[in-house]
Amino acid sequence: MVKKVAYLGPPGTYSEQAAYDWNSEAILVPADSIPAVAASVVVGDADEGVVPIENSIEGGVTFTLDLLIHDSDLSICGETVVTINQCLMAQTQIEFEEIKTVLSHPQSLGQCREFLRKNVPEAELIASLSNSAAVKEMMESDRSTAAISSKRAAEIYGAEIILENVEDRPNNETRFVVLSHLDERRTGSDMTSLWFEYHDDSPGILSQSLREFASRNINLAKIESRPNKKSLGRYVFLVDIEGHRSDSNVTEALDALNTQVSTMKVLGSYPRSNRRDS
Amino acid sequence: MVKKVAYLGPPGTYSEQAAYDWNSEAILVPADSIPAVAASVVVGDADEGVVPIENSIEGGVTFTLDLLIHDSDLSICGETVVTINQCLMAQTQIEFEEIKTVLSHPQSLGQCREFLRKNVPEAELIASLSNSAAVKEMMESDRSTAAISSKRAAEIYGAEIILENVEDRPNNETRFVVLSHLDERRTGSDMTSLWFEYHDDSPGILSQSLREFASRNINLAKIESRPNKKSLGRYVFLVDIEGHRSDSNVTEALDALNTQVSTMKVLGSYPRSNRRDS
Repeated sequence: MVKKVAYLGPPGTYSEQAAYDWNSEAILVPADSIPAVAASVVVGDADEGVVPIENSIEGGVTFTLDLLIHDSDLSICGETVVTINQCLMAQTQIEFEEIKTVLSHPQSLGQCREFLRKNVPEAELIASLSNSAAVKEMMESDRSTAAISSKRAAEIYGAEIILENVEDRPNNETRFVVLSHLDERRTGSDMTSLWFEYHDDSPGILSQSLREFASRNINLAKIESRPNKKSLGRYVFLVDIEGHRSDSNVTEALDALNTQVSTMKVLGSYPRSNRRDS
Repeated sequence: MVKKVAYLGPPGTYSEQAAYDWNSEAILVPADSIPAVAASVVVGDADEGVVPIENSIEGGVTFTLDLLIHDSDLSICGETVVTINQCLMAQTQIEFEEIKTVLSHPQSLGQCREFLRKNVPEAELIASLSNSAAVKEMMESDRSTAAISSKRAAEIYGAEIILENVEDRPNNETRFVVLSHLDERRTGSDMTSLWFEYHDDSPGILSQSLREFASRNINLAKIESRPNKKSLGRYVFLVDIEGHRSDSNVTEALDALNTQVSTMKVLGSYPRSNRRDS
């Protein structure tokens, strides 16, 4: 049976690219927000949902991290990495000095700040709700309006690409995770994601918790803190470790961690992407 | 001499409130971005600059964290905490069902998502570059347009507040840090902020590094990871510890940490805000 994979739409976003890379045979179903991607898996409109979790320049995608902590019972069953290539585009091939307005999501405008300052210093920068919406708005605007978005969005809306790779920093990659009702069986090259928080305010015991992994030769691939949303200065920690939750050293470490924390949740074990930095 | 304090403008932002709370006698100087706040201190247009660093719901302000890591030689000389109270406002007192459009910064629209879904489900949400710009645009638009912004912005632009406290989660607070050429002398109730990164990819040795603090009874108040911007999966760690860098146990811990990392930088020691969660 052909699987349905939900992603953060509209078509033309980097999330659509990630969903296609994850499963090129699947029917791709756009959803209009990250929580809506998760909801479509929960209610069964999709088998899996692909959501961005981390960008190599911008860092953690807080909307996804907070969904995993506060609002979801789904598991992580996979990961995939997409290279971000921001393109400057317009209705026709115009010169930099003809550009009066540039539309994009504020995060993308931020990623191209130096490029814009240098090449279109006089252009007005206008925020859009998504990169893809920016192209749509640009195509309905006048000829002096440009947008920053993906190559795929240019194709979909028939925009002309003026210049590719306009982001200020190279090595711009986004890691996506795949949400499902169950995680994956052990492959021998796996990752496990979890979160935990402590009874009191003291991240001081964090060093003790991390030793549960280190002492069992479990490599910590990532640690990230998020506010617990109840009080400034109180945190939830998200960690990615190497290994599967069914590996005996991982099981032991998670049991030990469980005695130190007030809440913890294993978000899933899944095959490691070969594009994850090692 | 009256001090000049730069903040992220325009007037009416929560940053202006923070700058006023920090020094109500100062001349407040708006800057148009977080880097511009820092730059105005560097070139001497302002004595100090106030920038947001952490929100109790949204987490770290990545622009400020990245500035401190990558682009600034300034020190942190203080901190101040502001309570965020988002208000729905319009040109006149209109009913919810009359509202056709709501303008705000995407982050603020996100903070009020549930409120908007429940009370103005039909309204179109439009992104602005700042909360304050949203009010300005709203005042120049038609009567059915509303904005979400601060009470202070409503006063400045003459908008009518329809409802206060429209954010979905209570306890919405933002911590700001004050940047200057030098940090502060020891008061006995101090914080020290620093960042470090490792030679290789292994946050595994993080547990060892954090033990340098724990073993010397230095409380870790916060730890946050940011991408090193060179490669996906490589991080810089920012930590806040209790104590002043001139305290002997802090000095010892920092010396020990220095032998484990590839780069580290003490961002400053400064008096702890009495509004910091303890």
